[in-house]
Amino acid sequence: MTVEVLTMGRIGVDVYPLQVGVSLREVETFGKYLGGSATNVAVAASRLGRRAAVITRTGADPFGAFLHDALRSYGVDDRYVTEVPHLPTPVTFCEIRPPDDFPLYFYRHPKAPDLEIRPEELDLPAIERAGLFWATVTGLSQEPSRSAHHAAWAARARRHPTVLDLDWRPMFWPDPKAAADEVRRALPHVTVAVGNVDEVEVATGARDPRAAAKALLAAGVRLAIVKQGGEGVLGVTADEEVEVPPVPVEVVNGLGAGDAFGGALCHGLLSGWPLERTLRFANAAGAIVAGRLACAPAMPYAHEVEAVLADG
Amino acid sequence: MTVEVLTMGRIGVDVYPLQVGVSLREVETFGKYLGGSATNVAVAASRLGRRAAVITRTGADPFGAFLHDALRSYGVDDRYVTEVPHLPTPVTFCEIRPPDDFPLYFYRHPKAPDLEIRPEELDLPAIERAGLFWATVTGLSQEPSRSAHHAAWAARARRHPTVLDLDWRPMFWPDPKAAADEVRRALPHVTVAVGNVDEVEVATGARDPRAAAKALLAAGVRLAIVKQGGEGVLGVTADEEVEVPPVPVEVVNGLGAGDAFGGALCHGLLSGWPLERTLRFANAAGAIVAGRLACAPAMPYAHEVEAVLADG
Repeated sequence: MTVEVLTMGRIGVDVYPLQVGVSLREVETFGKYLGGSATNVAVAASRLGRRAAVITRTGADPFGAFLHDALRSYGVDDRYVTEVPHLPTPVTFCEIRPPDDFPLYFYRHPKAPDLEIRPEELDLPAIERAGLFWATVTGLSQEPSRSAHHAAWAARARRHPTVLDLDWRPMFWPDPKAAADEVRRALPHVTVAVGNVDEVEVATGARDPRAAAKALLAAGVRLAIVKQGGEGVLGVTADEEVEVPPVPVEVVNGLGAGDAFGGALCHGLLSGWPLERTLRFANAAGAIVAGRLACAPAMPYAHEVEAVLADG
Repeated sequence: MTVEVLTMGRIGVDVYPLQVGVSLREVETFGKYLGGSATNVAVAASRLGRRAAVITRTGADPFGAFLHDALRSYGVDDRYVTEVPHLPTPVTFCEIRPPDDFPLYFYRHPKAPDLEIRPEELDLPAIERAGLFWATVTGLSQEPSRSAHHAAWAARARRHPTVLDLDWRPMFWPDPKAAADEVRRALPHVTVAVGNVDEVEVATGARDPRAAAKALLAAGVRLAIVKQGGEGVLGVTADEEVEVPPVPVEVVNGLGAGDAFGGALCHGLLSGWPLERTLRFANAAGAIVAGRLACAPAMPYAHEVEAVLADG
């Protein structure tokens, strides 16, 4: 069966505190969870009923085996998740300090296996056929992953929806300009770009949401989405500009909310919904995850999102 | 006050499973503990009443702050523990699969801060004056740590006891020969060498405990100690050969037992005990830790070791 949502990018083990509101200096115990942005988007789409798969790589170690187990438990197809010998599966620690401080500590050295995705190992027909193809800027930070992304986009031939998550993590890049250069090379190959205000600024140089969205459209996308946090979400196409307000939420853990938004965005785009409905739905999905402690396990089912929308 | 036991080498956060007998694939939760061999030896010596300090380095991050807190909580002087900017504090995962399988998964890339110990930053008079100076082969695996070890030994001028822990971790070296070459350069500067059968084989080429001990003496040490696991411990000097049997123990977690042995060895050497008493005491200390789940928190007090010896 054709995959509906095919993502490509990061995977890792999130080693997250079981105590909230304290730093890693004080936290005493941790749980382990499936993590990595592109992976979480696939989980979020699966929870919403979409056949999802992720293209990524792990270490050849017990944590890698855990990630396969976890993907399957969420109904995400793991056939494109392969092992890289001699590189450890990445782990990520975080601090959960609501409402707005969720620092991440990545252990992705000497190199993350997911940056060893190789063009010659891709299932290009599957990428071409997938209902939606999702990739992230982090995947452009190193070779051979960068070339693999361009090979995937060449196969995809700008079939809509082809989404670029502007996901910007300074620690993965020598400087913002290097990331901006790669985003500029990538945008002509995708049809949707999505990012928060910091991310669209790196991508376009513009921090103003409308100016940034226009710059993304000018670079070739059909739909530009700017997540403005407390200001809501802006979606812009050639014909339309939609801004939806935030869903009020008591934030427990902001991590994963963006990926929940992403998975819901995939669901809305594949459903052919009007832009406003898609953005409202994605906003609500993000708010649900922000109000929960976990990331991947917290991804909402469609009825949960609808309930939040009905309440609003 | 002069430090009695001054160690130099690894430090990190041990992120250890709270479930026993399962792989990292299955484990659900973790605790966090002070770890790193040279650090554990200082903790073990402190538990036995010795004024202990460790020369090492952490990242400039919350895990580094935790390590300072933990050292102080164990009464280990942390004045020689400094921060390295831009390198993460290492974390180590393990699997606890008694009786004999305790694999470690090190996250010490791009480089462990403790391998950034620099010769020019050492307190050489303190190293010279310390009652006992302890270093490990891992500290010789990279520069500038390697040069720092030789600078420390030059200051120490072979004052007894100057101990080299033959601590051999294949993942820290390009190949065994590289480690063997560095051990050969180090042995003329120390007065005591201690290792298990695998470690003395890397150091000397000989796997037979007596042959290895003789080779270590020929290379310049006064006392060679070979830990033979279930066969007990062999100690050899120019005048004396002592073999003590193992202390029977139901192994819960073998990790840390060698460091407990090391801390107790320091205590015996500083106490001027006969070699046999020192080895029996160290053996019992190691057995106590092997019978406990934790590493650093499990290091025994002297009365606990004496109780085990009295029982035997």
